[in-house]
Amino acid sequence: MRHFHDMSDPSELQGEGIGLVQTATVRLYDQQPLVLESGVTLGPIDVAYETYGTLSPNRDNVILACHALSGGAHAAGWLAGATKPGWWDVFIGPGKALDTNRYFVVSSNVIGSCYGTTGPSSIDPSTGKPFGPRFPVVTVGDMVQVQARLLDSLGIDSLLAVIGGSMGGMQALQWPVQYPHRVRSVIAIATTSHHSAQQIAFNEVARQAIMADPAWNGGDYYEMEGPRLGLAVARMIGHITYLSDLGMAQKFGRRLRNREKFGYDFSLDFEVESYLRHQGESFVGRFDANSLLYMTKALDYFDLTNGGTRSLEEAFRGCPSRFLLITFSSDWLYPAYQLKEVAHAVRRNHGDATYCEIRSDYGHDAFLLEYREQTPIVVSFLERVHRSGRREHA
Amino acid sequence: MRHFHDMSDPSELQGEGIGLVQTATVRLYDQQPLVLESGVTLGPIDVAYETYGTLSPNRDNVILACHALSGGAHAAGWLAGATKPGWWDVFIGPGKALDTNRYFVVSSNVIGSCYGTTGPSSIDPSTGKPFGPRFPVVTVGDMVQVQARLLDSLGIDSLLAVIGGSMGGMQALQWPVQYPHRVRSVIAIATTSHHSAQQIAFNEVARQAIMADPAWNGGDYYEMEGPRLGLAVARMIGHITYLSDLGMAQKFGRRLRNREKFGYDFSLDFEVESYLRHQGESFVGRFDANSLLYMTKALDYFDLTNGGTRSLEEAFRGCPSRFLLITFSSDWLYPAYQLKEVAHAVRRNHGDATYCEIRSDYGHDAFLLEYREQTPIVVSFLERVHRSGRREHA
Repeated sequence: MRHFHDMSDPSELQGEGIGLVQTATVRLYDQQPLVLESGVTLGPIDVAYETYGTLSPNRDNVILACHALSGGAHAAGWLAGATKPGWWDVFIGPGKALDTNRYFVVSSNVIGSCYGTTGPSSIDPSTGKPFGPRFPVVTVGDMVQVQARLLDSLGIDSLLAVIGGSMGGMQALQWPVQYPHRVRSVIAIATTSHHSAQQIAFNEVARQAIMADPAWNGGDYYEMEGPRLGLAVARMIGHITYLSDLGMAQKFGRRLRNREKFGYDFSLDFEVESYLRHQGESFVGRFDANSLLYMTKALDYFDLTNGGTRSLEEAFRGCPSRFLLITFSSDWLYPAYQLKEVAHAVRRNHGDATYCEIRSDYGHDAFLLEYREQTPIVVSFLERVHRSGRREHA
Repeated sequence: MRHFHDMSDPSELQGEGIGLVQTATVRLYDQQPLVLESGVTLGPIDVAYETYGTLSPNRDNVILACHALSGGAHAAGWLAGATKPGWWDVFIGPGKALDTNRYFVVSSNVIGSCYGTTGPSSIDPSTGKPFGPRFPVVTVGDMVQVQARLLDSLGIDSLLAVIGGSMGGMQALQWPVQYPHRVRSVIAIATTSHHSAQQIAFNEVARQAIMADPAWNGGDYYEMEGPRLGLAVARMIGHITYLSDLGMAQKFGRRLRNREKFGYDFSLDFEVESYLRHQGESFVGRFDANSLLYMTKALDYFDLTNGGTRSLEEAFRGCPSRFLLITFSSDWLYPAYQLKEVAHAVRRNHGDATYCEIRSDYGHDAFLLEYREQTPIVVSFLERVHRSGRREHA
């Protein structure tokens, strides 16, 4: 699908885009604290969010877009002075997959992250200092609980769809299990119903890389430089898992960087090394190491079978939601078989599950890069869900 | 193939094994230094080696066994007081794949390693201190050159076979290119003719993990504790790549360690985390971080096409060696297509290449674990090569 990326900017092709946006913040749980899945209480909680499009009079056109590990509330449009748009701007806007001429899209930063919603780098009101390692462990279920409360505060009872890729896809799958009657459809992309041993293993090595850095300092580093080197290594591990063998070969091959022969030393030899170091270093400036620890743990804990005490079929039993499940052929971090299992579980309950495996060489990154392939699939699925809702209301 | 591991110890099934062995060391290049592929000279060089079996009168029964990244000269039998045998004891011995009743097996530690052969932790005679980062960069070609000199010193001109898996397999493939008339057959297992971008990427992250540890100290740490945490993270990354998704799921699943519920903290939750930390920590006590840096660079530089200036077919042109190439279905670190390419290149030269893909769930680790599957294949291949040599001599 490479030729797609040689084409013009889709916002040029598809009209103006969303234009300037602002991130709002709302304080929730200021009367009663949130009871986390672990039983620990936390509050108040600030939640950063953005909305795009117009809420319909009967409030039946709401789509909740859920971000992945390193994303935030700013999914589409441009913040003032920004040099690039939100992380899913190719997918959200007028005439795009989540068409803001028709739908009202809500995007919020998850609890535990570092982009405006309360997380380990936030100030603990009881001490006046950052939570750091005293922040309670959060789960995907906790992320979803906070999203539901945000929707309450916006006067939104029911979602036309919840959509997300990777960690965002886990939130999307968690929604119908946790709030079966608040979500009419689920679009889960490049994700899983439970982290496998290999997925846990990659996250664990990333965590170890951070915690091995003396500058992590047990998680209390906010008045110091912080675990810059450890966080960079953690991110490099992530980036290998986001690409495919073939995709890397096409992108870098064995090309040498800025020279014709090997250095015969430990400087940069190969372009792929330079790419990884750049990814690692640029992440350090924009992400909090503790948030990476907490959020990777949330991913590892994610398990809709509750440790095997119920089947996936049982997990989705009684959910009236329709499901669209999208995977990519070269995604070895979230292999296709994982969402295929979800499709089978939904169908065994006589539910409505559409499963699509898109051919791509981009590996896990395909969930963001192959937006043109996904757009017609998502558009027609949403159209079908939206129409069926209108009939029910009529 | 899991049931194999439930059976008795193969040394019981197959007789006595090799028994007690000793590692010898020979000093080479003490008159003239070695000229490395980079042009840098180095000498003298100590080489640690072991031999098993008896050299035949006409010296036509020699097999060189080449070790992988973390291996050494001690491939088979038992060192005095040891609690486990050499790393390939299941494969080398009386009645085993490399049958020491028939063959004379030589195993040596590669240059740049830390098990007795000169490497970065060795004393630089010009300073009286460890080389550390002043050790010259070495290549797989350099490893092979030193092995050839070791064989010279043992009075061995020609090899019946050179065999190895992973990094050992690269040495095996390098041999016929570098010394086409000294090697009658090549057995390369779970390896490649050149490192791909993904393979380079994993090695680069492992190196970054070591170099990010302040205790690495630019490579001069031999009078201090050294980069224990960084080396452990590097090894953990390696171990993920040695297993398969399915193999990990079978071995660990999502089983929790020593408790029934999540800890809701950052202690060990999953058995796979415990496994990885154990692998990381135990490696620290037995391996030198600088050796890992130098040897992973040698792997990344390995490229029989010389940066694409010749085809694989050209690389093997004029090599009279027969090739046995073995891959494993779930090995995603050295995927099967890489040795299939070698088989095709040899055959396009009208050479003799046997290619076997063994079904296994063990991932890259299969090259050591699936020894029973490999044994009959290797035995009949060696038999054929040995017999054809006898006919030529007759």
